Formats: sequence, structure tokens, C-alpha cells
Amino acid sequence: MRFAKGHGTENDFVILLDPDGSEGLTADLAARLCDRRAGIGGDGVLRAVRAAAQGAGGARGDGTAAAEWFMDYRNADGSVAEMCGNGIRVFARYLAEHRLAEGPEFTVATRSGPRRVRLGGDGAVTADMGAVDVLGPATAVVAGQALPGLQVSVGNPHCACLVDGPLAGFDLSGPPGLDPARFPGGGNVELVRVTGPRSIAMRVRERGSGETRSCGTGAVAAAVAAAAARGLAAGGEAARGEGTQAARDDGDAWEVTVPGGMLTVTLEAGRAQLTGPAVIVAEGELDPGWLASSAGDRASARAASR
Amino acid sequence: MRFAKGHGTENDFVILLDPDGSEGLTADLAARLCDRRAGIGGDGVLRAVRAAAQGAGGARGDGTAAAEWFMDYRNADGSVAEMCGNGIRVFARYLAEHRLAEGPEFTVATRSGPRRVRLGGDGAVTADMGAVDVLGPATAVVAGQALPGLQVSVGNPHCACLVDGPLAGFDLSGPPGLDPARFPGGGNVELVRVTGPRSIAMRVRERGSGETRSCGTGAVAAAVAAAAARGLAAGGEAARGEGTQAARDDGDAWEVTVPGGMLTVTLEAGRAQLTGPAVIVAEGELDPGWLASSAGDRASARAASR
Repeated sequence: MRFAKGHGTENDFVILLDPDGSEGLTADLAARLCDRRAGIGGDGVLRAVRAAAQGAGGARGDGTAAAEWFMDYRNADGSVAEMCGNGIRVFARYLAEHRLAEGPEFTVATRSGPRRVRLGGDGAVTADMGAVDVLGPATAVVAGQALPGLQVSVGNPHCACLVDGPLAGFDLSGPPGLDPARFPGGGNVELVRVTGPRSIAMRVRERGSGETRSCGTGAVAAAVAAAAARGLAAGGEAARGEGTQAARDDGDAWEVTVPGGMLTVTLEAGRAQLTGPAVIVAEGELDPGWLASSAGDRASARAASR
Repeated sequence: MRFAKGHGTENDFVILLDPDGSEGLTADLAARLCDRRAGIGGDGVLRAVRAAAQGAGGARGDGTAAAEWFMDYRNADGSVAEMCGNGIRVFARYLAEHRLAEGPEFTVATRSGPRRVRLGGDGAVTADMGAVDVLGPATAVVAGQALPGLQVSVGNPHCACLVDGPLAGFDLSGPPGLDPARFPGGGNVELVRVTGPRSIAMRVRERGSGETRSCGTGAVAAAVAAAAARGLAAGGEAARGEGTQAARDDGDAWEVTVPGGMLTVTLEAGRAQLTGPAVIVAEGELDPGWLASSAGDRASARAASR
């Protein structure tokens, strides 16, 4: 079985090419591929299946017919996920390098519906991140310190907190506290430092993953929070809702520096675009012996060592 | 450039084939290859160079002429290292799978001198770990708790501590305290639980790496400590030196369960053999664009995000 490994701002993925969907992908294989010691290693698996070959249960939703490829995305634990902002950018780079998709701009079908992607001449890839919903002020408690933030939905829930001083000063080793009434399923927390008129630096702790080197939806939420704060300050508007509206209608680009590199977030008419590098590191073949081996032996060895 | 990825009890490596030594390997490339997000990912790089092509500065020492291949081993940070017990087993598996070495048993040249390796019919690979020196009792302080142990040199320094109860109960997140007079350059600390007459379970914290899923020399040190303790108890000898001698002359095999799997350590006449699985996960080509790209951009992005 062929594979590739790639990353976008150090959010990394194992890519499988399965045009007619005949290979399939089990949760167990996805988890084994993402195992950083006993497999290839990655934050998730991106399986490329022709949209026409994908059953209705996969791509579901309108617009899928316009896409030639469906992105079957799975998390490192093997669970199915809807979308991934850095993942779809790496996916687009892979398709383009293999001449599997035409033109600098094309549509990819995802479980969140069709998404446009665009390859720039400079090696960057832009992905449509869909609608952004600003849900009002919220608080994240990080290492005992209550930080005021903005609750933002980018398909998934975020609490983006503007902070002063160096980001390195914060302890993100434990899960931040969030109001369970507002975040019933938990949420991602961004610590955001404004570094210029249209630039921010951020660290992110992802729900279920801990601190990561990059998060596409987190970068969007961070830019929205920074834009909202600036809108409020500039316009002198008392109502947070008005400042929020200003942010959402801002067509400007924000540079977002994350530990794994730099992303650009463009906010316009309540939607976001995510731009940044997307790199293919290597390609090859999985060893047949490794593919055939059982994961059971490892599990029993782990149990025995406790 | 071709590469493979493999692991032995989840100690994982990027393998490069460079028969005539013309490709070389810089510290920067080794570190980039081992980067788990922006590269392939691994605990180290194993570069296979024909011993005849390797300059005198590399393989140095007697017996090298008997080896067809030299193992150029580098740590994940790019620094040169002398030997790696799990690494040489994966190295041997790679050579055998590619029919680059003949027979089930052959010699590999390393910076520690020539080492015999042997491939078993069951997929296991055995490596000669060289001389083991028992240096007497020592103490490791783990999360504030002083644990009595045995100082053992397997080329590198170890403090192997026999403990009661489940290994999971110990906190190895911080570096253990060791007597700087006995361990001037620090050391590896093993927590060892005896689970049967010839079986132990162990966790290890490696000097400079933190807790790892496996450590070949650590498994040897742990088996030596368990054998020494049994020797003392069985013989009723008061002098630790005599018990130690009994352990060193023990020709029996010890099963050592580590978080990443199971190893077998055979102690005989003051030397150790390490046996365990060695798996090739995948092989392929590094992307030329990735190879040509600079690591400088990443470094500056990281600095900016602090």
C-alpha cells in the first residue's frame, strides 16, 4: 500500500491514495499508521477517494458532485472527523503534486460538505474554512488564572483569549477550565498575543489532544478574537456585538504565528480562509509484513509492563 | 534519497542506505529526519555505509575489517552516538531484508567496535551488547523518593532500581537525582519489578531524552540488577561483590517487558546479548522539495511565537 507523509505548520498527516475506495481504512489501521513509534506517525490520516466512488454515507450533502475527490479524514486515535484546516491544505498539495486535480483552484468533498482550495505560486495553499460564529465573551482558566476570551465556533468550539506578555509564560500542560454550560463538550483554548496591526502569535490547547504545534480552526478563532478586540477599541463601541460584527466583515488578512510556523487568516462576510505552507515530506510503500502484523501483541505487552 | 522507517520495541529509527558513503549525513539533516512533525520522525538515524568505504575516523578499532557494513548512528538531535542496542537490531533486519548481508549471523562495524548480530527464524534479532560492568550500589531519587539501585555500565551509565508494586505508580516526568560523584555525566535510571524467576518489567528514563518506550542498554542493566539481587538472596552471601559475580556469570535468559514490547537479555561471562523484535514499517523516497528546503524558516517562526 502506497503512502505519503506531509505537514502544514507541523500539523502532520499520513496520506493514502485509494481512488476507487477499494482499500478502505479501518480505525485500527488509521491508529497504527499514526503511531509515532510503531507506525509512520501523524496527527491524522487523509485518505483520497474519488467522490464518485464514495458512498452517500461518506460525503453526504450538496455540492459533492462538484468535487472530484473526497477527503476521508481520521484522527490519530482512528475516529472519524469532519474537517481539518491544515489537513485539507496538505491533501490539496498531494493531489496537485500527483496531477490528480486540475487548476490552481478546485473543490474537495469533506464530511462538512464541499470546500474550495487554492494553490498559490509561493507554495502556500488556501482553504475555505466555512462560516465563523462569534458567540460572545467567555472565560478560560489556565493554571489557576482566569483569562477573559471570546467564544467562537469554527465548526468546532473555541475560547480565544487575548493575553499580555510572552506566550511562553503560560502553563498549558493541563486542560484549561471552561464553563460547562457554554462548552458542554469541552473546547479548544487559544492564548493570543497581538504583535502588530494585523499580526498575532498564538498557542493552542486542543480538546482531546493537549497542546499542539498548530491548529487551523484555532488560528481562525484567534484572528476573530483579535479583530473583535480591535474593532471595539477603534470604534469605541460599547456593545461587544457591534465590534464582533466589524471583525466578521473585515476582509483583511491576519498573520498568525503558531509554534509550527505561520498561517494567514482572511475574514470576510462571516467566513474564513486559511492560508499557509503545505509540505510533502516523503512517499513510499508500507511494508507488507508490518501491514499483516497484529496490534494485539503490543497491547498485551503494554498491559504486562504496568 | 531512499529511506526506511523501522522500530525495535518502539525505539524507532530512520534508515538511510549510502553504500559508498557519498551521500553523507549532516547533523542538520539527521535532526530534520527525526523531527516527528516536520520530518519522518525517529529516535535516531541509522546510515548504512560499506565498512570499506568508511574512513578510519568512523569505524576505528580492530575487527572492523570483518564487517561488511558500518552503522553510522546519530541521535534525534543530530549528534553522533557510538552504539544503540535496539538500533543495531533494526539495522540488521534492514540489511537482511535487502539481501545486503549474508547468513543468519554477521558482524556490523560500529563506533564502539565490531558487534555480532543474529537473525532468528521467529523474526527476532539478537545483538551482542558487549561487556557489562557492575559498579556497586547506588541511589536514584525519583519524585522525592530515594530508591536503592545498582550502578551498571553497559558502555553508558545506568542506575537500575528494583521496586515493589506497580511501575505505573512512579512519576518519571522529571529527571531523577543521581550522585554527581558517581554519575558525573548523569545516567539512565531503570525502575525494575521482578515478575517471575527469570522475568522483569521495567520503565526507563534516559539521560537527555526523558522517559522512553524502550532502551536496549537499560534492559541489560535491569536484568543485571535483578540477577544480582537473586544471586544475593539465593546464595545468602553477604558481600554484594559475590552476588554480582554470580549474576555476571549467569548464562540464563531474562525476559524484560518494556512499555514498547518485550526483550530478552542473556548474561554470560560478563557480556550481554539483547534479543527482540525488529520491524521495518515502510520504505520510500524523501521528497526533493523537502530535502532542498531550509530549516531556518522554522527556527525563526518558533522564535517569533514565544
